[in-house]
Amino acid sequence: MLVNDKIKALRDLMKKNGFTCYMEPTGDPHSSEYVADYYKGREFLTDFTGSAGTAIVTLDKAILWTDGRYFIQAENQIKDSEFILYKMSTPGYPSVSEWLEKNLKEGDNLAINQLLVSQKTIENLSDSLIKKGVVVKPTEDLLDSIWIDRPSLPTNPIFKLDMQYTGKSVEDKLEELRENLQNEEADYFLLSSLDDIAWLFNIRGGDVTYTPVVISYALISANSANLYIDKNKVSNTIEEDLKKHGVSVSDYEDIKIDVENIALGSKILLNKARTNAWIYSSIKDGIEVIDKTDITEHLKGKKNETELANLRKAYIKDGIALSKFFYWLEHEIGNQDINELSAAQKLLEFREEQEGFIEPSFGTISAYGPNGAMMHYSATKESFSKLEQEGLYLVDSGGQYYNGTTDITRTISLGKPTSEEKRDFTLALKGHVNLISAKFLEGASGHALDVLARYPLWQEGIDYKSGTGHGVGYLLGVHEGPHRISTMPNQVALEEGMVVTIEPGVYKQGKYGIRHENVVNVIKNIKNESGQFMNFAVLSYCYFDLACIDKELLTKHEIDWINDYHNEVYTKIAQYLTESEAVWLKEKTRKI
Amino acid sequence: MLVNDKIKALRDLMKKNGFTCYMEPTGDPHSSEYVADYYKGREFLTDFTGSAGTAIVTLDKAILWTDGRYFIQAENQIKDSEFILYKMSTPGYPSVSEWLEKNLKEGDNLAINQLLVSQKTIENLSDSLIKKGVVVKPTEDLLDSIWIDRPSLPTNPIFKLDMQYTGKSVEDKLEELRENLQNEEADYFLLSSLDDIAWLFNIRGGDVTYTPVVISYALISANSANLYIDKNKVSNTIEEDLKKHGVSVSDYEDIKIDVENIALGSKILLNKARTNAWIYSSIKDGIEVIDKTDITEHLKGKKNETELANLRKAYIKDGIALSKFFYWLEHEIGNQDINELSAAQKLLEFREEQEGFIEPSFGTISAYGPNGAMMHYSATKESFSKLEQEGLYLVDSGGQYYNGTTDITRTISLGKPTSEEKRDFTLALKGHVNLISAKFLEGASGHALDVLARYPLWQEGIDYKSGTGHGVGYLLGVHEGPHRISTMPNQVALEEGMVVTIEPGVYKQGKYGIRHENVVNVIKNIKNESGQFMNFAVLSYCYFDLACIDKELLTKHEIDWINDYHNEVYTKIAQYLTESEAVWLKEKTRKI
Repeated sequence: MLVNDKIKALRDLMKKNGFTCYMEPTGDPHSSEYVADYYKGREFLTDFTGSAGTAIVTLDKAILWTDGRYFIQAENQIKDSEFILYKMSTPGYPSVSEWLEKNLKEGDNLAINQLLVSQKTIENLSDSLIKKGVVVKPTEDLLDSIWIDRPSLPTNPIFKLDMQYTGKSVEDKLEELRENLQNEEADYFLLSSLDDIAWLFNIRGGDVTYTPVVISYALISANSANLYIDKNKVSNTIEEDLKKHGVSVSDYEDIKIDVENIALGSKILLNKARTNAWIYSSIKDGIEVIDKTDITEHLKGKKNETELANLRKAYIKDGIALSKFFYWLEHEIGNQDINELSAAQKLLEFREEQEGFIEPSFGTISAYGPNGAMMHYSATKESFSKLEQEGLYLVDSGGQYYNGTTDITRTISLGKPTSEEKRDFTLALKGHVNLISAKFLEGASGHALDVLARYPLWQEGIDYKSGTGHGVGYLLGVHEGPHRISTMPNQVALEEGMVVTIEPGVYKQGKYGIRHENVVNVIKNIKNESGQFMNFAVLSYCYFDLACIDKELLTKHEIDWINDYHNEVYTKIAQYLTESEAVWLKEKTRKI
Repeated sequence: MLVNDKIKALRDLMKKNGFTCYMEPTGDPHSSEYVADYYKGREFLTDFTGSAGTAIVTLDKAILWTDGRYFIQAENQIKDSEFILYKMSTPGYPSVSEWLEKNLKEGDNLAINQLLVSQKTIENLSDSLIKKGVVVKPTEDLLDSIWIDRPSLPTNPIFKLDMQYTGKSVEDKLEELRENLQNEEADYFLLSSLDDIAWLFNIRGGDVTYTPVVISYALISANSANLYIDKNKVSNTIEEDLKKHGVSVSDYEDIKIDVENIALGSKILLNKARTNAWIYSSIKDGIEVIDKTDITEHLKGKKNETELANLRKAYIKDGIALSKFFYWLEHEIGNQDINELSAAQKLLEFREEQEGFIEPSFGTISAYGPNGAMMHYSATKESFSKLEQEGLYLVDSGGQYYNGTTDITRTISLGKPTSEEKRDFTLALKGHVNLISAKFLEGASGHALDVLARYPLWQEGIDYKSGTGHGVGYLLGVHEGPHRISTMPNQVALEEGMVVTIEPGVYKQGKYGIRHENVVNVIKNIKNESGQFMNFAVLSYCYFDLACIDKELLTKHEIDWINDYHNEVYTKIAQYLTESEAVWLKEKTRKI
């Protein structure tokens, strides 16, 4: 079916329903970062396959918004259709809401797939459009009847994660959650976030690539805990087990009935930004909604000692796989054809050798030369580069292990680096060291610390257009809140047990990309009359390419940190390598 | 009149009015930092003379809240009265609002002097108390009838500030303001902030110590601009002049009538946090209030080139006065008795020698030895220390000049510094240099940059419990928004022309205080593919005591910065000194 035919069919449905504008966002009913194919309606409608974007169809216009990662790809994929591209965060292009405010007229309405849009978005759009006399109408999925070969919802079974990995029983998690509910004077907690549900019930699923979650809702009260899920995914053993822990299993769609039946006068706590309009609409008038960031997000963000001990194991496994991969690459690049895709495949194979590896935690960024400058580059079968014995190669990858989720980036030189490459590599490394070795006062947010990683780069007039770090889940999302390290304001303090990446970089269009990414967890340092100090404990162990370091640019503190770190890399990793790999790693981690 | 008699008289009035709780905050009708004596009702009621605090009187309780600066002083001053002290931000003591929420019961009410409380505070208190069935009642000043010898309102005349100082005419400022009003779709702008009014109309007054403002309101629309002021303060010449610039002068109290007469359906822009409940209550239903930080605060915060050129002159004058003062102190301390008060007086005399000096911009902090550890220490006739030929001496002072407002802190050793003193002095200086020499990307807030000043101290487990920097006015408040450099979240970007202090320190109770404070203005640096970079241009020129520096702790960059800065201090200041002073300054600014 051609895109223009889909647009036509959609317009027929819009007319039938009396809609003048229809919005299809990217997402699923749970505000997930990665979504099951069943929910890729925007992709179906537009033929644009990128992971982010919003499609708007009116009776005479069809517009696709996406961000800088996808401008070229999107232009290409929509070029034979009526869709035109609006570039996000680009001068000359209005944002979705600006466009709606300007182009919709009194009497128009805006229909949005109610399953894929959060109540928060509905309210924000309504606030800005109501003044124009435009009504926002959350509606049923209009694409469903057009989408003949729509993929079915995934049906993979869920599995239980044992105490040796979770470190905390479902009962204890529910107890902690209920204490928080009591503090908020809330009777119910409605949870839509898939990773929070998986964390709370110590289960994992297979519904979404890269993130072992299961499509579900949860509703918790002082004396009940319900999991709403396709029951075919739950074995009798697991259902029994959940029941023992105080959790009842209900059908996925029953969440609506149970929310509708909440007694008037009750208070329900939920996060409007992560609760879809469909489920929100089932909350009756007379029930007080407390709109707050999910309590579970914060509880989940602070890893316990069992999780941290497992993560330390996972990152050693990752370090072994990466060492073997770089050894292989360095020795084979002259002997065989290697390209971005085959290199990524080889790295995956080394990870697969590790006990307890399940799948990658995201699509590997295997980027050679100028491709590294594209922060979210993804080589495809249609377009990939061959690795030559020169230039920089950036590889950003991670794994889902029973021991947790990993994420690491290293940049190496495949030949003799230029002085510009060395300078930029070293500046980014200075930023990395400046932040990773920082002692900071309890209460500091990642936003307040972000500048420490940028400082050495800023002094040379260089910035990177990404955050410095994001939280990482435990056998869950590779991006997880509530904390982050970013120039974007965020007041969440970096607390003991939080896991976060540190990944400054230099990106030069048409030349190369450099990123140094380690993962750390926050620990307590000294406490004195100034207060409680905190610092980072390193989890990732893989060498930084010394050939790319310009030692002249480093302070003594930075040299000491690099030498100490490399000593630890060797000590922790070499024992798991072959003799020749170990000899090679000794050289890679030599003192400078 | 004894405090307990005042409490009794107040309770009689409360009963007559049917009030069960009365609150007297510290402030004036314009949310000023420093207030005229007429408005010191809390001081009158409690006998506590500190600059911050809130008094609550119920029918059987009398409580005074104040902050850490004043715990000892307050205890002492209220000890013979019924008032008890509640320590702010101290475990075991509820905050004012927590106390009210806990202790007021259904049917109680809370009366607050409507002139001294902002609409924002009224709304916040109402939000938290309404649930308890407690009504908040902004009311007339109950103390007035008790306060027999109440000081009268000040009557000092206002003066005009010429274009050579302001750099921008009233017409141009009004035009810029009206453009902003149009963008906000506002018909009126109600301005209560005294420094914003003085800035907007290019006038200064003499109503408040340290800050040359005049008690007034302003109301601006597309075709009118009204200044509400005690007309006795306005000479005919100035009234004529203001009229020429499109400004009408009205009686102070007439603001109420004019606000009451605003046509229904109009939109009025104001800052609820700086608009008192009395004037707010005169806004009729049917008028839309747009609650926003005062536009003028932002316009005023970005100094123009004329203001900056003047400020450069003011800071040279300050540098001369400080150099002469430190020269005098170093040469006289063995010859005559010098104490904190006489030293401050001498410094004032050196400032008074400078052309265009008007008055100090705040009460000088002249703090010897352990007194320096009290961040807001103020020597009094009853309690001051003698300066000896040992230990550290911290002096934080500033002036109001026609050329602008200054603020500077230096810490010097009066004998041979200990190694602990040298270490702490050097660490604080490292923080100062780290921030003051930073290049940063446009858009960064002072909150995002704050850590740069703390970083060297944090690494040694030291923090200072104050902000790192605050905006400074132009012949106005020494503390001015909208920007600041602080661990407290704040999203205001540091924009070109903004003036801000940089003042990290080390405070060791019972030992000493160290603070290095320079004032800078934000300027543009290079612009490239990473964006527009910014940096700080230094305004303050006074040496840092080299005797207190431990060079071993400094990086090459820091040593270079100190040497370059000292070279500039000598170049800019020595020409205005006597020969012997200049020789001395040469040595004080020698290369290290």
